[in-house]
Amino acid sequence: MSENQFAEDALLAHIHASVPGAAHVLVGPGDDMAVIKVHGGHLLAAKDVLVEGRHFLASASMAQIGRKAVTRNISDVAAMAARPVAILAACVLPRSITQARAQELVDAISHTAARFGAPLIGGDTCLHVGNGPLTLCVTVLAEPLEGVKPILRGGARAGDQLFVTGALGGSLAKDGGGHHFTFEPRLAESHALARLLGANLHAMMDLSDGLARDGSRLAEASALQAVIIAEQLPCTPACVQAHTQAKAWQGALGDGEDYELLFAVAAGVQMPSTIGPNNTPITCIGSLQALPFPNDTALLCLHNHQSVDVSKLGHWHDSI
Amino acid sequence: MSENQFAEDALLAHIHASVPGAAHVLVGPGDDMAVIKVHGGHLLAAKDVLVEGRHFLASASMAQIGRKAVTRNISDVAAMAARPVAILAACVLPRSITQARAQELVDAISHTAARFGAPLIGGDTCLHVGNGPLTLCVTVLAEPLEGVKPILRGGARAGDQLFVTGALGGSLAKDGGGHHFTFEPRLAESHALARLLGANLHAMMDLSDGLARDGSRLAEASALQAVIIAEQLPCTPACVQAHTQAKAWQGALGDGEDYELLFAVAAGVQMPSTIGPNNTPITCIGSLQALPFPNDTALLCLHNHQSVDVSKLGHWHDSI
Repeated sequence: MSENQFAEDALLAHIHASVPGAAHVLVGPGDDMAVIKVHGGHLLAAKDVLVEGRHFLASASMAQIGRKAVTRNISDVAAMAARPVAILAACVLPRSITQARAQELVDAISHTAARFGAPLIGGDTCLHVGNGPLTLCVTVLAEPLEGVKPILRGGARAGDQLFVTGALGGSLAKDGGGHHFTFEPRLAESHALARLLGANLHAMMDLSDGLARDGSRLAEASALQAVIIAEQLPCTPACVQAHTQAKAWQGALGDGEDYELLFAVAAGVQMPSTIGPNNTPITCIGSLQALPFPNDTALLCLHNHQSVDVSKLGHWHDSI
Repeated sequence: MSENQFAEDALLAHIHASVPGAAHVLVGPGDDMAVIKVHGGHLLAAKDVLVEGRHFLASASMAQIGRKAVTRNISDVAAMAARPVAILAACVLPRSITQARAQELVDAISHTAARFGAPLIGGDTCLHVGNGPLTLCVTVLAEPLEGVKPILRGGARAGDQLFVTGALGGSLAKDGGGHHFTFEPRLAESHALARLLGANLHAMMDLSDGLARDGSRLAEASALQAVIIAEQLPCTPACVQAHTQAKAWQGALGDGEDYELLFAVAAGVQMPSTIGPNNTPITCIGSLQALPFPNDTALLCLHNHQSVDVSKLGHWHDSI
C-alpha cells in the first residue's frame, strides 16, 4: 500500500496517540464509549455513523435504518454496562427524499431511542447539495448504573474466561435470516451481568466488526492474548446456512454486525448458562492469557487443536 | 410545492411536535443546545453536521474544514452562555482521501476543540462506499457557567432591547474577505454578557442562517415580534463590498454564517459599547414587542421607517 493511501486503523492509531488528555476525561478515544466527569459523577458518550452502501443498502426501509442507527449506539451503552439517557441525531438526506420518508426516518429514530429511555434531545438535518448517500450520525449519552463502574475493554486479566451472549454470524444474510436490522441491543443482559458478577466482570465490548477483529481489540486493550476455541463458538442458523455446518465458525469470527457482548470473567467463577430477563444464552468461547512473547498476535484461534490464521476475517473499521 | 417534496422546516416542526418529553430533559429539540439533568446538575449537548457543497467547497483545506466543524458547535455553546467540556466527531471520508489529509482533518478538529477546553473524546470514522461528499458531524457537550443558567431563545419579553455582537454579512465573500472559515466563536463575549447582565439577559442565540431567519426564530420562541431597524445593522466591510453601502443591510439580514450572538436585554438597561476581553462591539439593532395580532410575522424590518419584506432572506435550515 502506498504511503498516501488511506488506512483507517492508521488514522485511529494517530488519533489515539495525538489527542491530548484532560483531567475531566476518564476514558478518551478507543473504548466503546468515552467517560467524562460531570458534576461529580460519570457521563458516558459515544457516536456512530451510518452510511448508505456501508451500513445499509438503498433498499432498506426508513424504519429499518432509523432503528439501526439507534440500536448500534445502545449496543455501545450495553458494552459499558451503563444506562442510556439521551440521544442526538444528525441526518444528511438525499435530494430525492420525500417528506413522508424523512418523517418515517426521524420517527424510527425517536421511537427507538425512547424505548431505551434515551429521548431524542437534538441534532441537525440538511439536504445533500449534489448526489450523496443518506448518512446518519447518532450520539448517545449514558450514566453508570448505580454502584457499577463502566466496564472497559482493557480490564481483562490472564486466566480470564471469555464469553459471548447469544449466537454469532450470518447477520448480513440476504435471505432475511440475518439480524443486522433487527438485533436487540443486549442492554438488560449487560446490566444483569454487571450485577451478577460485580468486580469479577473484568472487561466487555460489543461485537460489531466480527469476533476475530473485536476479540483482538479487547485482548490488545488488556495487553493479553485471546485464545478462542472454534468448536465452542455459538453460531446462528443463518450463519450455518450461509457457511455450512463445518465452516460456520468462520462466519462467527468474520461476518460482523452481531451486536452481541464479548466479556471477560475472572477465572474460576461458575457461570449460569443464560442471563437476563429473556434467558439469553451465554457461552464460554475461550480464555485470555499472557502474551507468549511481545508483539505476538492478540488473538489465537484453535480449530481441531491447531492454530488457524483468522487475521483476514472481520471488518477493519472501528469507532474513534 | 407538492406534498411529497421535502421541506426542512416541516420536518423540524414534526420533530418538535412528536418527540416525547422526559423528566430529565429540561430543554429538548429546538434551541441552540439541549439541556438534561445529570448527577443533579445541568449538561448541555448539541450536534452539527458539515457537508461538502453545503457548508464548504471541495477547494477548502482540511484545516479550514476541521476548524469550522468545531467552531460552529462552540458557537452553540456561546449561545447558551455555557462552558464546553468535550466533543465527539464523526467523519465520513471520500474514497480518494489520503492518509495525510485525513490526519490533517482530525488534527484540526482535535486542536481546535482542545483550544476551547473541549477535548476530542470519541467518535467514528468510515469511508464512503461509492462517491460521496466529505461529511463531518461534531457533538459538543457543555456545562453551565457557575451561577449562570443556560440562556434560551424563548426568554425574551416585550420591550426588550435586541443586540448583536460584532458585524454581520459577507461571510461567504469569495475574495477571501469572508469569515465563515475564520470566525472566532463569541464564547468569552457570551460569558461576559451573562456575568454583566445576570437576570437581565433574557434570551440569546447564535446567528448561523442569517438575522432575518434567526431573528424570527428567537422572536417565535418567545412568542413576540422582533422589530429590526435596517439602518442600525452593523455590516462587515466584506458585506458592504458585496452588496454596496446602500444595500449592505440586506446582506446583514440574509448572508448567514455570521456566528455572532443575537441577544435580548431587559428594557432600560444601559449597555456598554463593547464586551469581553477583546472589546468586541455590541450594537442595538431593534427591540421585541408583543405580536400586534396572532400569527403576525415574527420579524418586522423597518427601512426608512417603512416595513420591508425580508422573509426571503436567510437560509432555511436549522438544527433539530
